[in-house]
Amino acid sequence: MIVLANDSRNCYDVFANDGKQKFLVDFEQAMVTIKEVAQRAGVSIRTVSRVLNDNPHVATATREQVLSVIKELDFRPSAAARYMRTGHSQLIGFLTDELAQNAFSYDLIIGAQQAAWEHEKLLFLLNTGNDVHVETRAINMMRDHQVEGIIYATMYHREIKHSQFPEDIPTVLVNCFADDRSLPSIVPDEISGGRLAVETLLEHGHRRIGFVNIAAREPAPLGRLEGYREALANYGIPYDEALVRFIEEPFEGLATSTYDCVLSLLQMSNPPTGIFCFNDLMVLGAYDAVRKANLRIPEDVAIVGFDNVEILTAQIHPPLTTMELPNFEMGQLAIRMLLGLENSIHNNQPIQHMLECPLIMRKSV
Amino acid sequence: MIVLANDSRNCYDVFANDGKQKFLVDFEQAMVTIKEVAQRAGVSIRTVSRVLNDNPHVATATREQVLSVIKELDFRPSAAARYMRTGHSQLIGFLTDELAQNAFSYDLIIGAQQAAWEHEKLLFLLNTGNDVHVETRAINMMRDHQVEGIIYATMYHREIKHSQFPEDIPTVLVNCFADDRSLPSIVPDEISGGRLAVETLLEHGHRRIGFVNIAAREPAPLGRLEGYREALANYGIPYDEALVRFIEEPFEGLATSTYDCVLSLLQMSNPPTGIFCFNDLMVLGAYDAVRKANLRIPEDVAIVGFDNVEILTAQIHPPLTTMELPNFEMGQLAIRMLLGLENSIHNNQPIQHMLECPLIMRKSV
Repeated sequence: MIVLANDSRNCYDVFANDGKQKFLVDFEQAMVTIKEVAQRAGVSIRTVSRVLNDNPHVATATREQVLSVIKELDFRPSAAARYMRTGHSQLIGFLTDELAQNAFSYDLIIGAQQAAWEHEKLLFLLNTGNDVHVETRAINMMRDHQVEGIIYATMYHREIKHSQFPEDIPTVLVNCFADDRSLPSIVPDEISGGRLAVETLLEHGHRRIGFVNIAAREPAPLGRLEGYREALANYGIPYDEALVRFIEEPFEGLATSTYDCVLSLLQMSNPPTGIFCFNDLMVLGAYDAVRKANLRIPEDVAIVGFDNVEILTAQIHPPLTTMELPNFEMGQLAIRMLLGLENSIHNNQPIQHMLECPLIMRKSV
Repeated sequence: MIVLANDSRNCYDVFANDGKQKFLVDFEQAMVTIKEVAQRAGVSIRTVSRVLNDNPHVATATREQVLSVIKELDFRPSAAARYMRTGHSQLIGFLTDELAQNAFSYDLIIGAQQAAWEHEKLLFLLNTGNDVHVETRAINMMRDHQVEGIIYATMYHREIKHSQFPEDIPTVLVNCFADDRSLPSIVPDEISGGRLAVETLLEHGHRRIGFVNIAAREPAPLGRLEGYREALANYGIPYDEALVRFIEEPFEGLATSTYDCVLSLLQMSNPPTGIFCFNDLMVLGAYDAVRKANLRIPEDVAIVGFDNVEILTAQIHPPLTTMELPNFEMGQLAIRMLLGLENSIHNNQPIQHMLECPLIMRKSV
């Protein structure tokens, strides 16, 4: 048997497997359940339908009576039936590029999932591993299941190609933005995050502040550097390029490279008393370097990180003062934008929301 | 308009919104696409249907011709239509209890997702936060969407109540098992993991081996302790309870408590030269304690962890030798069991698969 949905006209067409004979069998029978609800509740089928559709034109007592019978009979209209009633499949696709390789984006998934759940939506999770072929198939499968929208989240803040995404499915980008700015997106505010990190050191009296950055030309290192410069400028401190180091190492050697960098900063004739690390992983190396130099944290050298990877920042000694990525909030906002509860368009242009990175004050400053 | 699916009889029933008028509109129109495929390919609709259903009774050349036209016309039968044809919704529910609170289970999701994807299935991800109400609703929503099965994964290895789960949806448990053993499950082999960790220290010549465990009566601490005892027994070394410490602290203070424990072990008159930590987070405290005692890792004290939290184990200095949880493999196996590609029943009993925890050799031993 073949059933073909034709969404534009909201109807189902039914064929036998030989593709010739059309039939509809015994459709009184299927109605039994909704009819039973109506009979048991002493209302019309139309009223039950209205309650199911959250139509406000139902008296409160009647609604409660119907809901109570629905519960009593354990009546569950199928997902297909609900889709046909409401035009909503209740499904949202959640695509990621590189979920496996780090631990930073849990809160993103959790934020999206909680917000989706509040509106009775389920998330499809799919990690594409940056494979365009996988991505295309994933989007087609999600279209087959009539997702109400797609969230596409990247592991690190970056630009992506708009052409990867379909025109016909609402899409919100998280931690990334389209090359032509043609899709709404949500990203962390790297500049204000970097500024706040460095201002925290400045407020604690530090005037020589080292910055261990990464060398990539991406929004996070560029933005945090701009924030570093702004914070110094706000305190009337000239930018000293000798205090800013760039690491080219891949992920694996990050802490070791930072160890070398920080040790060399501490061996300067006029060494920094505060150090801002581009991310929390680097801090493991920075802590080792400060210990190697026989200095104390925070008495001799204060350290601020970025990302708030809690299994690390809360456990190291002393616990790390760091900037938190607004992952949870980004996930929530993405769902709200998809569902039309937050603006995703302004002056006919897709919005790019920039969310603040909050300061997590611990013991390293 | 209301469409009610009646799965047991494989038919759809169509009603107007007032619940009275039944109708079917214009069903020739919907056929256009499959008809077009048939016409363009010069075959019957029945043949197209057979190709779509992977029916083997189609000549290879014909199949290729049809597939080529399907591709050319970008014909995609809807998910509902595919479900009606195959009886498979292509959806698998993935429920977790506490995804947010740690970073250990990424690989589990990735493993499940990759295996699902190989079989053209999509995962629904849902984190219940251990809320039974959320769990019940989640399972009902997944049933509405006719998931082919449910994977339920817990954050830590533990027993769960069988009554949480529906009888009518195939379910595989991961990192947990049902109180009455009535569901198939996959868990890490804690005993052999603990034994291998300690044998690694023994093979490197250590004979006094400390163990910092947690005090909970759960499979992981109990199993790893049993493994510790077995390894010592294999080497003819008597169990010395002075070398085994139990931490009662909550997660937040874990590294600090471990620091105290390890320092006290190192201050014994006959101190251990090897230390096995129940998990990698503890190792941060253990490393600090060894440094505090002015000893070197691994020259004076060798350390083995558990879990292989890579952002930590690969970055600390020296990089940590640890046991890896078989999360990726557990995720893959769960999908294969759900799809019937691996045994989930043996002698009429649901199977509990125990997967080995591989040793990750780095520089701390």
